[in-house]
Amino acid sequence: MRNVDEDSITQIVLARQAQAQDPRLKQVMTSVVQHLHAFARDVELTEEEWFKGIQFLTDVGHITDDKRQEFILLSDTLGLSMLVTALNNRKPEGCTEATVFGPFFVEHAPHYENGEDVANGAKGEPCFVSGRVTGLTGEPIPNAHIEVWQADSDGFYDVQYQGEEGSKGRGSLRSLEDGSFHFRSITAESYPIPHDGPVGRMLKALGRHPWRPAHLHFMIEAPGYERLITHVFRDGDRYLDSDAVFGVRSSLIADWRRHEPGVAPDGSRVETSFSTLSFTFILNREAATEGGDKR
Amino acid sequence: MRNVDEDSITQIVLARQAQAQDPRLKQVMTSVVQHLHAFARDVELTEEEWFKGIQFLTDVGHITDDKRQEFILLSDTLGLSMLVTALNNRKPEGCTEATVFGPFFVEHAPHYENGEDVANGAKGEPCFVSGRVTGLTGEPIPNAHIEVWQADSDGFYDVQYQGEEGSKGRGSLRSLEDGSFHFRSITAESYPIPHDGPVGRMLKALGRHPWRPAHLHFMIEAPGYERLITHVFRDGDRYLDSDAVFGVRSSLIADWRRHEPGVAPDGSRVETSFSTLSFTFILNREAATEGGDKR
Repeated sequence: MRNVDEDSITQIVLARQAQAQDPRLKQVMTSVVQHLHAFARDVELTEEEWFKGIQFLTDVGHITDDKRQEFILLSDTLGLSMLVTALNNRKPEGCTEATVFGPFFVEHAPHYENGEDVANGAKGEPCFVSGRVTGLTGEPIPNAHIEVWQADSDGFYDVQYQGEEGSKGRGSLRSLEDGSFHFRSITAESYPIPHDGPVGRMLKALGRHPWRPAHLHFMIEAPGYERLITHVFRDGDRYLDSDAVFGVRSSLIADWRRHEPGVAPDGSRVETSFSTLSFTFILNREAATEGGDKR
Repeated sequence: MRNVDEDSITQIVLARQAQAQDPRLKQVMTSVVQHLHAFARDVELTEEEWFKGIQFLTDVGHITDDKRQEFILLSDTLGLSMLVTALNNRKPEGCTEATVFGPFFVEHAPHYENGEDVANGAKGEPCFVSGRVTGLTGEPIPNAHIEVWQADSDGFYDVQYQGEEGSKGRGSLRSLEDGSFHFRSITAESYPIPHDGPVGRMLKALGRHPWRPAHLHFMIEAPGYERLITHVFRDGDRYLDSDAVFGVRSSLIADWRRHEPGVAPDGSRVETSFSTLSFTFILNREAATEGGDKR
């Protein structure tokens, strides 16, 4: 393979990695090489453009740390994350659809009892959330593990505040016997994804805004069911048609009802206006491993 | 565009960046999105694999600094660099072919007069290099700016030594009136690309070795001619058929002649064995901008 040229190179690279032990790795990397090369040929990538690409990826790498994941942001804004989510979460009609995970989930968030306030001091108007977790035939799913996380009214997740410790606007709880759950939090607002880095510069150059429509993140797990990672979006948000990370699915848009100061659903008095949200999450049964049926 | 799903998402992303001001950026990013999405669909990329990819790119970003460019190494080892080089350096038959630039060029390397020793203390057996710079019709090109750089006999470029200052095994010189040049350096040896990082792990997983056949880097510039970035490879090297970065072109392989201790081409006595190399670089005329003709 001494005479590498623009015609021969792709086959030469593929032949070189034909010895990969792991057949799946070989398959994935074959496709990576084919598409990477096809891209360069399609656009006749110049050396200057190639170098700009190298510099861009270097910048993405250098701004990424424990608190900020610019590669996920890049994947999100190019629609790759949502595509991978969709490819891996095909569900029967009627099940709650999945959407992007996003970079702001944190493991081991504090546990709350139903009715407690997961805002834990996060800034924003109160929101009372209630819902149910069920299967596709309506069977209630008790004791489901529910993780919820959201940004505050300034558009920031707790982990985006430098130097601050403690979870705000995130937590886990369990569904009750009848599959229901309820908690207090703050009203979700639309917010821009972090756009002071290379991904922000890319969006600007592409004539795109960095905003996401208001949403609440949920991850719900229960034995015998597929894990559901999704959002609930707030109806009426101006960015529902142009989510910077392409996460909106019509079935996930819900009505956040506004209320004047007064008595909240939990019986407490609230001195400010507040909102209420109710949503039913319908989980898909896990593929049969012990005689269960997968619809 | 509320109902994003695996079928609609690519068109939705492309529509979103349709407002890009720069038509070339729009063209390049359209192809990026199409190929990125086609890749994910082709292999049905799992969420776990996607995350491994994110972690891999993060590692590549974090090991990259002023001295080490792991993204270029990644591009090199996937054959992208050589493909881009080939696409951008189509030349008439007879011209010296281009090959990959590599990550080890340094600007403002010291200037040498013909006959001087660019090794400047780099470890290795002496090598006496001579050559000519000409045009396609054989016309000598005087005063061409020649940059040369190479690894030492341990396989390291000067910039790879932590904390050491000073250029070793690199420098610039000018061709003489008759287009000729000559300098002393050290004999190039095959060496592995840096493989203690994520790219090295990738090569290992793919069953690939990290070695490059012995070579000397050249960059040659002269007014009226296209800049030439290339290597001269050492015939007989065991890695000529499996260069880790796919840079070998048959026309760039030359005979490094071995000599016993004795009188060198410059008339000096050398107490060790040494080698000599001679190579003619044929530059392509620049595309006509003021009535010149491009062959």
